[in-house]
Amino acid sequence: MPTEGTAHYDRAAELFVELQTLICAAVEELDGEARFGTEPWERDGGGGGVSRVLTDGRIFEKAGVNWSRVEGDLPADFAAQLPGEGRAFRATGVSLVIHPRSPMVPTTHANFRCLAKGDRSWFGGGADLTPFYLFRDDAVHFHHTLRAACDRHAPIGDYPRFKTWCDEYFYLPHRKETRGVGGIFFDYLGGDGHTSLDAILAFVAEIGRAFVPAYLPIVKARCELPYGEPQRTWQLRRRGRYVEFNLLYDRGTVFGLKTNGRTESILMSLPPLVRWDYDVRPEAGSPEEELVRALRATDWLAV
Amino acid sequence: MPTEGTAHYDRAAELFVELQTLICAAVEELDGEARFGTEPWERDGGGGGVSRVLTDGRIFEKAGVNWSRVEGDLPADFAAQLPGEGRAFRATGVSLVIHPRSPMVPTTHANFRCLAKGDRSWFGGGADLTPFYLFRDDAVHFHHTLRAACDRHAPIGDYPRFKTWCDEYFYLPHRKETRGVGGIFFDYLGGDGHTSLDAILAFVAEIGRAFVPAYLPIVKARCELPYGEPQRTWQLRRRGRYVEFNLLYDRGTVFGLKTNGRTESILMSLPPLVRWDYDVRPEAGSPEEELVRALRATDWLAV
Repeated sequence: MPTEGTAHYDRAAELFVELQTLICAAVEELDGEARFGTEPWERDGGGGGVSRVLTDGRIFEKAGVNWSRVEGDLPADFAAQLPGEGRAFRATGVSLVIHPRSPMVPTTHANFRCLAKGDRSWFGGGADLTPFYLFRDDAVHFHHTLRAACDRHAPIGDYPRFKTWCDEYFYLPHRKETRGVGGIFFDYLGGDGHTSLDAILAFVAEIGRAFVPAYLPIVKARCELPYGEPQRTWQLRRRGRYVEFNLLYDRGTVFGLKTNGRTESILMSLPPLVRWDYDVRPEAGSPEEELVRALRATDWLAV
Repeated sequence: MPTEGTAHYDRAAELFVELQTLICAAVEELDGEARFGTEPWERDGGGGGVSRVLTDGRIFEKAGVNWSRVEGDLPADFAAQLPGEGRAFRATGVSLVIHPRSPMVPTTHANFRCLAKGDRSWFGGGADLTPFYLFRDDAVHFHHTLRAACDRHAPIGDYPRFKTWCDEYFYLPHRKETRGVGGIFFDYLGGDGHTSLDAILAFVAEIGRAFVPAYLPIVKARCELPYGEPQRTWQLRRRGRYVEFNLLYDRGTVFGLKTNGRTESILMSLPPLVRWDYDVRPEAGSPEEELVRALRATDWLAV
């Protein structure tokens, strides 16, 4: 591992701890009642992490913010798909999923990570928003905040490219739907061995720090809105789509399970309560149908 | 397609319709309240099926029994993994999952299918039992009934081999648990091109007809047992494991989604209501722990 790569890797791990701390503090403050538990764990084969989970809050039904720093050997077939020589790898990251209680408040996910393998290091990550009811202003605010953070680090922070990448990644082909209204997603930044890892780390830090102002104002704006059983049932059904995406398609989940990760920390992303009802379709003209219509690549900053 | 293969395929499709009809009738009769809906569907690319779903019954919270007969071209990578030349395939089958309301009554799954590709035809299928609380007599009865059906068709009906195959197939490596207490599972019967498809079809028919006497007496024996919120919560959490298996590992689900199957019919297998709670472990000595201890390959007919 070259010195530069190692230094960046260590600084990335520190940044991700800092993001875990500040995001948990902001979520706790807004919730006002529930607190995150803190559970350190070690991984068989090298490294470990700290899982922080909040449950049954006033606003948040379940929130998990997981930090990890692990190392080991990748399965050969998996190693062949990644930059860098050999099978030995190191990975550090912070990953979060927040499931609010109210169906009026969107679920969100963010993840930032640094991988090192052979002579290569690269960053990946992003943040995306998954509403149950569509408030266009929320989608615009979320995208606007992320775009502003990207723009401060151009050309590394390439919002149009990362926004499209997000739409393509968080897509359920068997449903012909995006998971939500998108956000940004990027991977392999620095994996070419040429781009400054310093500059990439600064970009990732900016996006990580933009998460709280991108998401929490939306929670504040929507968390007191009234709703009833039909809206709650719709939320539980839509959460089913979230489970489908994470277990069928999400590379982070697959990576974690294939590299002998801690199952409870990986599957912490799954919603607390979920429904699958057979062949339910929203009524024409309903708010539920409006949401489903919005689940495709949309330029929220142009509408 | 050779004549013999075609004749068997048609007879298999008829058998599977018959199994759908008799299983739905037996489930409805025991439930006494809810009825199966019947929904024919067509598949883009060829063929179709009939989905039958019962919801919100007195005993059964959700039961789906799906028959299909489809044809088309397989994706090249997938086709290469199956017997027979080329990419053109035909598949007919019946697949069911039953989710009872009471946590004292086990969930069950069964599936019987015939595939034809190039000059080969083969049968696959099986039935397995997934309790939330362990009643050893139920596991014994289920296995005993299936073994007796296998024994009537020896050597094709090879219970020891199919029982082991089931334990190995319905296994969640990330949980280090079998999905339930097993049953039988078999695949590629006849795919060698030598074994009599007549004899295999007779075996599959026998197992299919054994499903009702294998499962329904267990439902009758347990459905009036009292339970409370803690048992219901445990059931919803264990249903989470069922979802994990089906979306992460189940080949039927993957086959269906990869061959442009009808999503709602494929995912009809998912439970109606599910919980994921972070890192819950059953108390030492509790009935919940007893269940988890039983989730490994066990010779139920020897205990």
